[in-house]
Amino acid sequence: METLPLQDYNIYVGDFDQRLSDWLAEKVYSRLLIIVDQNTKMHCWPLLEPVVSAYQHSLIEIPAGEDHKHLETCQQIWQTMMEARADRRSLTIDLGGGVIGDMGGFCASTFKRGMDFVQMPTTLLSQVDASIGGKLGIDFMQVKNSIGVFRNPQAVYIDPRFLRTLSARELRSGFAEIIKHSLIADREQWEELRQISDLGKVDWPKLIVPSLRIKQRIVEIDPFERGLRKALNFGHTIGHAVEGHALETDAPLLHGEAIAVGMIAETYLSHRQLDLSAEALETITDFIRRIYEPVALDPATFPELLRLMSNDKKNESQAINFSLLPAAGSVEVNRTASPAEIVESLEYYNEIVAVGNRI
Amino acid sequence: METLPLQDYNIYVGDFDQRLSDWLAEKVYSRLLIIVDQNTKMHCWPLLEPVVSAYQHSLIEIPAGEDHKHLETCQQIWQTMMEARADRRSLTIDLGGGVIGDMGGFCASTFKRGMDFVQMPTTLLSQVDASIGGKLGIDFMQVKNSIGVFRNPQAVYIDPRFLRTLSARELRSGFAEIIKHSLIADREQWEELRQISDLGKVDWPKLIVPSLRIKQRIVEIDPFERGLRKALNFGHTIGHAVEGHALETDAPLLHGEAIAVGMIAETYLSHRQLDLSAEALETITDFIRRIYEPVALDPATFPELLRLMSNDKKNESQAINFSLLPAAGSVEVNRTASPAEIVESLEYYNEIVAVGNRI
Repeated sequence: METLPLQDYNIYVGDFDQRLSDWLAEKVYSRLLIIVDQNTKMHCWPLLEPVVSAYQHSLIEIPAGEDHKHLETCQQIWQTMMEARADRRSLTIDLGGGVIGDMGGFCASTFKRGMDFVQMPTTLLSQVDASIGGKLGIDFMQVKNSIGVFRNPQAVYIDPRFLRTLSARELRSGFAEIIKHSLIADREQWEELRQISDLGKVDWPKLIVPSLRIKQRIVEIDPFERGLRKALNFGHTIGHAVEGHALETDAPLLHGEAIAVGMIAETYLSHRQLDLSAEALETITDFIRRIYEPVALDPATFPELLRLMSNDKKNESQAINFSLLPAAGSVEVNRTASPAEIVESLEYYNEIVAVGNRI
Repeated sequence: METLPLQDYNIYVGDFDQRLSDWLAEKVYSRLLIIVDQNTKMHCWPLLEPVVSAYQHSLIEIPAGEDHKHLETCQQIWQTMMEARADRRSLTIDLGGGVIGDMGGFCASTFKRGMDFVQMPTTLLSQVDASIGGKLGIDFMQVKNSIGVFRNPQAVYIDPRFLRTLSARELRSGFAEIIKHSLIADREQWEELRQISDLGKVDWPKLIVPSLRIKQRIVEIDPFERGLRKALNFGHTIGHAVEGHALETDAPLLHGEAIAVGMIAETYLSHRQLDLSAEALETITDFIRRIYEPVALDPATFPELLRLMSNDKKNESQAINFSLLPAAGSVEVNRTASPAEIVESLEYYNEIVAVGNRI
């Protein structure tokens, strides 16, 4: 088991059993509330149940998926907490992907003005992305994470056993954040990642730990996203809009799939606005295109995508905010782009995808 | 203007105009959102409008009253914020009583994971009670403030001009918290208060400032209600249940009216459990009975009141938690009482009220 000590909690990477068991024995929680969905109840809960069965506990099962990450599901969670007679001295354990971590953490942070919670991310995406930063929340009016709070968990347990239950598509989705971390802050890791061609053969803990350290460095300098932390938004201004829009269609995208789209378009903006070379642009977009299924964007949806971007909480006042790459391995925050430039970057993405399709 | 400096913000008591005007000029907010109800829009907004009219601002009008302090109203507030293109650099001004302060502060604290907010309490109750402590939230499943967060405002402006628009009933409601503060922590102020017989003749700022100092002392030692802060719950375990239940009837009580009921019953528990003398019991309950309209409780509702108490977020595990008075001017936290004792205290209250009615 590897331990990443953060400012006010630890991330444990490895089998959680003994560590969690010792910790629960040491703490005195009045009751445990474990949030699951149908998938994690089936695949992950059997690993956790033996550890918590000695304590008073209640399972709270919510429907799986980003399109349930809203207030109605929160009400269901809060209501179950109330009925289970949870109080401020109870503990919530979020056993699931990003949706359960974000929403379960938000519900724990607001129930009776806040109880402790532990994150147990079960997808690669949530292990790499959601386990640092204290960002909690839900979607509202189709705008992602527009209601929420910043609050850190008591601990995060990243168990590689959970990854065995994931589909190739889910692994790809999580891999997008690993790519992002290397592109904004670690040229060396980026050069290593570029060699990967088969995600089925990756030793994940070896990629997760350095990727977490990059995020840790950034977040600890800027916990409330006032400046440097915006570096992590590379690929996310356009990616979030693409994700939000796709959610309303018959073909929703996983988060990392949408971020892959966003990273290609925003790498193009980086080339246009900053010093990122044409060669780097090609190398980066080529690698991303090889990993992800190419999905062309319908130009008729561009105005809607722009509308979603202009509602993004990363904006200050009216301009659409970007974090762009002056080179692979470094980042510049607080860039803006005009609607025309953004449309051009989306057209570039479509061209790249079309090339990919022809191959 | 008197300034009470707290750990991370100031409370200003007096006319707010110049001070707020200077502060807004110094800060750079992208937009102001002023939350009002129909009453404060009519009576208080005319005082504020000249100060904020130089800035981009939107009024958010919500229905008045505790029975609108729930998620649906939050959704209305968040939606209006979204439509007004508010962002994290916007400022919310809560212009109203406790409902607007608690709910508006909660909405500001959770919109895009948190923007700044300023409290401008317009009732005596909210000026004395809600301006210190950072407790924000809404009611859920009939349980008061069961969803919320702890977060401090940027500043609080307490303007005595707002009190002129209040009814006698509303003044009485706020006065309950002044009585409470003196009873738990300031015997001298309690002896002064006891001399008051006509609330129409009170110089309010002279009572508000010392009362705020009592609350300040307690809250700064224990910001997250882990221990000492529970002192402030005197009268509130039973009072909240009475208030929550009355909310569902045709005769809802104002918060302070319910707390007056709770203070009488919990003073009785103090006498039964602690050293509070029979004489002190009589003095305290007699004073409260003289100020408030006597409202008898229907014994048929006692089981429901007990159920509401056992759901109170002040409880740890299953026992019902009280803060009681060993003497006037001091308090003991983390007391518990059995259902039978609580019922006895409610019966005592009914007797006291009946005596009052006979006079």
